[in-house]
Amino acid sequence: MMKIFRVVKRGYYISYAILENNMVIRLDEDPVKALIRYSENKEVLGDKVVGLDYESLLKNFKVNDVRITKPLDPLEVWGSGISYEMARERYSEENVARILGKTIYETVYDAVRPEIFFKATSNRCVGHGEAIAVRSDSEWTLPEPELAVVLDSNGKILGYTIMDDVSARDLEAENPLYLPQSKIYAGCCAFGPFIVTPDEVKNPYNLDIKLRILREGKVFYEGSVNTSKMRRKIEEQIEYLIRDNPIPDGTILTTGTAIVPGRDKGLKHGDIVEISISNLGTLITPVIKLERKK
Amino acid sequence: MMKIFRVVKRGYYISYAILENNMVIRLDEDPVKALIRYSENKEVLGDKVVGLDYESLLKNFKVNDVRITKPLDPLEVWGSGISYEMARERYSEENVARILGKTIYETVYDAVRPEIFFKATSNRCVGHGEAIAVRSDSEWTLPEPELAVVLDSNGKILGYTIMDDVSARDLEAENPLYLPQSKIYAGCCAFGPFIVTPDEVKNPYNLDIKLRILREGKVFYEGSVNTSKMRRKIEEQIEYLIRDNPIPDGTILTTGTAIVPGRDKGLKHGDIVEISISNLGTLITPVIKLERKK
Amino acid sequence: MMKIFRVVKRGYYISYAILENNMVIRLDEDPVKALIRYSENKEVLGDKVVGLDYESLLKNFKVNDVRITKPLDPLEVWGSGISYEMARERYSEENVARILGKTIYETVYDAVRPEIFFKATSNRCVGHGEAIAVRSDSEWTLPEPELAVVLDSNGKILGYTIMDDVSARDLEAENPLYLPQSKIYAGCCAFGPFIVTPDEVKNPYNLDIKLRILREGKVFYEGSVNTSKMRRKIEEQIEYLIRDNPIPDGTILTTGTAIVPGRDKGLKHGDIVEISISNLGTLITPVIKLERKK
Amino acid sequence: MMKIFRVVKRGYYISYAILENNMVIRLDEDPVKALIRYSENKEVLGDKVVGLDYESLLKNFKVNDVRITKPLDPLEVWGSGISYEMARERYSEENVARILGKTIYETVYDAVRPEIFFKATSNRCVGHGEAIAVRSDSEWTLPEPELAVVLDSNGKILGYTIMDDVSARDLEAENPLYLPQSKIYAGCCAFGPFIVTPDEVKNPYNLDIKLRILREGKVFYEGSVNTSKMRRKIEEQIEYLIRDNPIPDGTILTTGTAIVPGRDKGLKHGDIVEISISNLGTLITPVIKLERKK
Repeated sequence: MMKIFRVVKRGYYISYAILENNMVIRLDEDPVKALIRYSENKEVLGDKVVGLDYESLLKNFKVNDVRITKPLDPLEVWGSGISYEMARERYSEENVARILGKTIYETVYDAVRPEIFFKATSNRCVGHGEAIAVRSDSEWTLPEPELAVVLDSNGKILGYTIMDDVSARDLEAENPLYLPQSKIYAGCCAFGPFIVTPDEVKNPYNLDIKLRILREGKVFYEGSVNTSKMRRKIEEQIEYLIRDNPIPDGTILTTGTAIVPGRDKGLKHGDIVEISISNLGTLITPVIKLERKK
Repeated sequence: MMKIFRVVKRGYYISYAILENNMVIRLDEDPVKALIRYSENKEVLGDKVVGLDYESLLKNFKVNDVRITKPLDPLEVWGSGISYEMARERYSEENVARILGKTIYETVYDAVRPEIFFKATSNRCVGHGEAIAVRSDSEWTLPEPELAVVLDSNGKILGYTIMDDVSARDLEAENPLYLPQSKIYAGCCAFGPFIVTPDEVKNPYNLDIKLRILREGKVFYEGSVNTSKMRRKIEEQIEYLIRDNPIPDGTILTTGTAIVPGRDKGLKHGDIVEISISNLGTLITPVIKLERKK
Repeated sequence: MMKIFRVVKRGYYISYAILENNMVIRLDEDPVKALIRYSENKEVLGDKVVGLDYESLLKNFKVNDVRITKPLDPLEVWGSGISYEMARERYSEENVARILGKTIYETVYDAVRPEIFFKATSNRCVGHGEAIAVRSDSEWTLPEPELAVVLDSNGKILGYTIMDDVSARDLEAENPLYLPQSKIYAGCCAFGPFIVTPDEVKNPYNLDIKLRILREGKVFYEGSVNTSKMRRKIEEQIEYLIRDNPIPDGTILTTGTAIVPGRDKGLKHGDIVEISISNLGTLITPVIKLERKK
Repeated sequence: MMKIFRVVKRGYYISYAILENNMVIRLDEDPVKALIRYSENKEVLGDKVVGLDYESLLKNFKVNDVRITKPLDPLEVWGSGISYEMARERYSEENVARILGKTIYETVYDAVRPEIFFKATSNRCVGHGEAIAVRSDSEWTLPEPELAVVLDSNGKILGYTIMDDVSARDLEAENPLYLPQSKIYAGCCAFGPFIVTPDEVKNPYNLDIKLRILREGKVFYEGSVNTSKMRRKIEEQIEYLIRDNPIPDGTILTTGTAIVPGRDKGLKHGDIVEISISNLGTLITPVIKLERKK
C-alpha cells in the first residue's frame, strides 16, 4: 500500500510516499523507479518524515514556497475513449460524424479495437492546485474525470491516479479530425494528487468517480459514475496502446470518461474543478481561459 | 544556403552542413541551434571538411560503422492533413465517416480550421537508409510523401525536409477515432536526408514530390505531385499548430500528402520507398513488417 | 546550530542535518549549498525525519546497505602545519632538514608565512567507519588528529569537522621534498562524521582534541591537546591559502596537529583510530596497509 | 604520429589532431579518449578538415573568437624535480635547507626516491597564448621549461607536451615547506600547444629544450638543455607517482627543469616566455603579475 506525491520546494522537486498507517517517507529515488521497485515486491527505501502536513498542502494549494505538484513527469500521456456506455450515448446525441449510419462513437464502442489517442506531454500537464485551461478558440470545454493508470514500458500497471482529460468539445464535435486540437494544448491535462499502488486500489472496477464544477463558490455541476460501468477493460486498452508502440516507463493512460456535462456546462475562467475517486483522493484545479497571443 | 545532415560514427552523432559550392562543414553545435543561428543571419561556424563522401553514404545506407541517420532528434513531430485537393478526393472515395452527408475529409478541406495531429516522437522516427514499418495488425499501410518544415518554438520555419508520414490506412479508414493508432507507432515516420534552409528552397509552393515503391527491385508504384497544388498553406497550418500549444525548438510539421497509392499498393516487408522533392534530395527507406510480440 | 552528515543508501547519497533539540532533517539540497545558506542566515529547508538512528550508524559502521560516509565531497583538501608549539618541538627532535641551524619546522613556526600544502582530492578521502591507509612503502605512518574548517570560495568558514591528516612520517622525515608523497595517496585522509556550523562550535580555540589508537581491542596510544595551544590562528592560515589561489566552495582546510605519537607508535593494518573533538563528535576509522600492485 | 590541439570557438571546445603529412582531423571524441585509442593501436576517427590555419592561430594568440587553448583539461598535474644534475647544483648554490650538511636537493638527487609534488588542477593551468602569473607576494618567479608526459590511469605514457612549471623561487628558497605555495596558484602552469604521441617523439632523452624570456620585445634571457642530461628517468618518476596513488586518465606529469635563470632574471608583468622542445613545438605565454585583492 503506497501513495506517492510530490512537492516543489524552492525549485527542488521532492517525492514522498504514504505507506500503511499514514506513515510518510521521503523517497530515496525517482517516483517511477520507486513504483517499479514496489511492483517487484522490493522494499521502497526512504526516510520516515514527520510534520509534513500534506493534508494542508492538499487544501491550501495556492502557489507558495512549498506546494503540491504533479506526482511525476510522464514523457507521454495517452487516452482511451468511449469505454463506458454513457460516453457512447452522450456523445452520440450530438450531430457527429457517422459511418454507415452509426456515429463514430457507437461504431468504436461496438468494435473490437478501442480508441487510443495521444493526450499530452508532461509540460502540458498540471498537478493538484495548478490551473487547467480552456483554449482561446473554444467556447465549450469540459472536464473529463477519469481513472488513469501509470504503466511501465511493458504495459504493467504500476499505479492509479485521477486524471482530468480536459477537452475542447466544440472542436471535437465539429470534426473528428480536430480531436488532437481539442485534446492537446497547454493545460489540457491534470492528474494527481497521488499515484496509488494497485494493492491499495484493490478492484479498479468498483470505484466511485465524482465530478463537481464550482462557479463563484457554488456547485454549478455535479455528476458521478462507478467504474463498474466501464465496458472496455483497462487491460484491453493497454494491449492496444503498446501494440507495435514503444512507451517509456511512467507513461500514463487515462481510461475514458462517463460523466459528460452538457452544452451549457462549459468551463469558464475562474471555475474550480473537483474530481474524487474512491481511494485515490480528490484532485482540485482552478480553470483559466487562454488568451490569444497577438 | 545550407543543407544539414548527420551521421552516426562509433556511437557518436556528428552533424554537418553543406554550404554553397558544395563546401561541407562539420557543425560546432547542435543542428537545431545552427538552424536558429542561420535564421538570424548569424554565421554558422564549423570546420571545412574534405573527403567526407556523403553522396556515397546516401547511396550505401546499409548499417555500418559510419552511416547517415536522422538529421536531428525532434521532441515532437506533428502532421497536417487534407491540405491538397487530391487528398480530399482520394480519401473520400472510401466508405469513410461523414458529417451531414459530406465525408470528414471533404468537411475539413472546406473548413477554416485545418486538421492537425500528433505524429511522432524522435524515437519513433527513422532517417535515410533506416527502416520504416508496417504495423503487425495492418494489411494496408501506405507511405505518405510530404514536404515538412522544421520550426522553432515560435513557429518560424528554420528549414525544410522530406517526410514520409507512413500510415496504416486500413485502421484510419475503419474509424477516424483510430487515426492515432494508424499514425503513431515504431517506425511510423522517416525524414531527411537533409534539413534545407528556406533560401535554398526558395518557393515551397513549386516543388515536385515524387514517390516510388520498389518491390523485388522493380518499380511497383510511382506517383508525383507539385506543391503548387497545396491549398492549405503552410503558414496557416503552423498558425493552428502553435495556437495555445507550446512546441519546442526543432519541432517538425509535415504538411500533408497528395500522392495516395490505392488499396492494392500497400507496403510489404522488403519493399523500398523512395521519395524525392526538388532541392531536398531523395529519402530512401526499406520497409519491415512488425511482428506481434507473444 | 546545525550538524550535517551523509549516508549512502543503495548507491544514493543522502544528506541530513541535525538541528536544535536533536531534530533531524533530510536536506533538500547539496550539503555545501545548505552550509552556504546557513552562513547567510537563510533557512535551511528539509524534511523532519524520525527513526533515523544515526547514533547506531555511527557505532555500527561496517559496510552494509545504509551507512555513514563523508559528509561532503571536497574538490580540494588543503593542510596547514606547525601551527602548535608541540609540533615545532616534536618534529624538531628528529634529524630533519635545517636552515642556518634551525630545523625547517622551527623556521616556519617563527616565520610570518605559514606552511600550506595540498592534502587530497575527495576520492583519496574517507568518512567515518571507512578505512584509512598506510602506504605500502612506509614503515612509520601516523594519524594527525586535527580541527578542520570547510570554506566557501571566499575563504569564509562554513563549518568545522574532525580531520585525520594521515602522514607517512618516515618519508617526510627523510626529506621535506617527499612531503607530497607522505601526505597524498589513497586513504590518506579521513574527515567527519559531521560538519558542524560555527555557532555550535562557538570558540574554536577552546576545544579538546583526543586521539586513541586501538590495537587488538586495547588502547595502544592515547593523547590529547586543547586548541587553545594553537599559535597560528585559522584566519591567518586561510589568508595564505586563498592568496592568489582560487579554491572551490566546500574546500576543506585542516589546521595542523599537536598530538604526535612517537616512532614506535606507527599504525598497523587492523588498528582502529578514534579522534574526538569537543562538539564535533568522534571519528572512528579502521586502518589498512596498502599492498604493492605487482 | 599524432599531435593533438584544441581551440575554443564561440564558447565551444573543439579538438583536432594533426596526422602524417600534416593532415588535420577534427576529433570525434574527447582528446584523452583519442590518445587512449591511439595507444591501443586503434584508429582515431575524425573528419579531415581543411583551411584551419592553426599555424596562424599559434602565432596570433590574442583573445578572439577562435583561439588555441589547453589541449586537454587535466584533473591533476603533478611534477617531479631535481631530475637533472644542473638542477641539483643550481638550486644548491642558494642558502637552502640542508640535511646532515647536504642540501635537500643534493640529497634527493642522490636518493632512490624522486621528488614528486602536486602541481595544479586544470583551472590553474593555461594554454598557448594565455597568461601565466607571478604571485602578488613573490619578487622572484621563474619559468621552468620542462618535458611533460600525459598519462592514463595506469601510468602509461599517452603523449608528450611542453610544460612551464612556473615557480615562485623566493618562497621555495625561504623554506621547503613553502613549496606548495611557490608551485600552486592561479596561472602557475602552462602546457601545450600540442600533445604529441610517443611515436612522433621517438627518443624522449634526446630533445632540445630552449627557453627565451622576452622583455619589451628583446631577448632578456636565453638558455637551453638537452634531455639526454636527465638522470632521473621518466619511468622511474611515474613509478613513484602512481605508487599507492590513484590518478585519473589524462593526468600530466612534468619531469623537472634544468634551465634555471638566476636571481636577476625573475619574470615581470608584460614579459613573454617562449619554450621550444624538439618535435613538440613552441609554447608562448605572456606574463601577468597578480594583484592582491583588498
